[in-house]
Amino acid sequence: MNRGIVMGEVWATRKAQSLEGRKLALVALCDTHGPTSEVVVAIDTLDARVGDAVLISYGSGARNVLSAGQDNQLILADAAISEIIDGRA
Amino acid sequence: MNRGIVMGEVWATRKAQSLEGRKLALVALCDTHGPTSEVVVAIDTLDARVGDAVLISYGSGARNVLSAGQDNQLILADAAISEIIDGRA
Amino acid sequence: MNRGIVMGEVWATRKAQSLEGRKLALVALCDTHGPTSEVVVAIDTLDARVGDAVLISYGSGARNVLSAGQDNQLILADAAISEIIDGRA
Amino acid sequence: MNRGIVMGEVWATRKAQSLEGRKLALVALCDTHGPTSEVVVAIDTLDARVGDAVLISYGSGARNVLSAGQDNQLILADAAISEIIDGRA
Amino acid sequence: MNRGIVMGEVWATRKAQSLEGRKLALVALCDTHGPTSEVVVAIDTLDARVGDAVLISYGSGARNVLSAGQDNQLILADAAISEIIDGRA
Repeated sequence: MNRGIVMGEVWATRKAQSLEGRKLALVALCDTHGPTSEVVVAIDTLDARVGDAVLISYGSGARNVLSAGQDNQLILADAAISEIIDGRA
Repeated sequence: MNRGIVMGEVWATRKAQSLEGRKLALVALCDTHGPTSEVVVAIDTLDARVGDAVLISYGSGARNVLSAGQDNQLILADAAISEIIDGRA
Repeated sequence: MNRGIVMGEVWATRKAQSLEGRKLALVALCDTHGPTSEVVVAIDTLDARVGDAVLISYGSGARNVLSAGQDNQLILADAAISEIIDGRA
Repeated sequence: MNRGIVMGEVWATRKAQSLEGRKLALVALCDTHGPTSEVVVAIDTLDARVGDAVLISYGSGARNVLSAGQDNQLILADAAISEIIDGRA
Repeated sequence: MNRGIVMGEVWATRKAQSLEGRKLALVALCDTHGPTSEVVVAIDTLDARVGDAVLISYGSGARNVLSAGQDNQLILADAAISEIIDGRA
């Protein structure tokens, strides 16, 4: 998983059917100094706002954010926001 | 997923059978400043044109772009264009 | 797998259900010279403390840290601490 | 997938049994400017020659290059040459 | 897969059960110029010595180094040494 900062979102009319109705957030990944220039696009089911610190999960981890059932290999999600981070120490 | 800009396409006569008939797009990945020098090759089923901003999905996400059925583990696709991006905010 | 140094942890109230009750460690990845600025967030089941050298496993490797049974594809874990490193040579 | 240029091959006597009889190509990955210093080792079933531009597939994509059947999860291949590229535009 | 040079090993008393009895090698990844500062930790079943050039496999490729049977998704291995490289050309 990675920590990141939500920068905005993207939208589209022409897209894979399985992305229909999904909110897609643009997230800048963080290193030890803060946000970097590296960007990932992650499915957002937690209603993150611009500026929120979030956790990004990948692969099967992302699919399990959307649905933790047996058939989630059919879900198109290789990156998803899995937490809105409240704090760190 | 990553945001990228379509730069062109590649073609081949000698290839794995499962790539027969697939259009393969060259895509420059974007960071917070715009397109970088990093390139991925993604299967394109959405007829993206050169200069289009697109979303790239990976792994099971890419296979689900091509076919969202139970047997898509047999599809040769580790990267696919999953959206032609219309806008961002 | 990667070697890293535990820097702290993150917490959240809004999160994917499957992360409920999980401790999430911030880990700086190491290269040949020591810790770098690159950070991953890993599920910690071994009670690592800040400053500990740890081993990070990814993907199915991470899920097998949490539960090595048949159904671990339903576990949301793409990165987990799999060892507290005692020494190296 | 990535575009790359074949630089040579590697061989071994001590190896995992499933790599027996496989040709392993050293491939320099390309960015928008051409070959970079980054190298991957990919299984070659297409008889690529030094200097050929090739397409590299990863993960399940690589296993599907070697065998597109139901049981290909048992094939040791995380990277494979899936095309000898003839041209680009 | 990647080419790398074995730098040493790591050990631990507190670890995930499935890593019990495994030898874990520290490997510096190579680019076109030789070893870089990037390090991966890989399970070693081939008795590699410090200074050996090795091939590293990832994901399902790594699990297939350890056991090529049907149930290897339960094996904790996201990186493994799959060859001791004798030569290259």
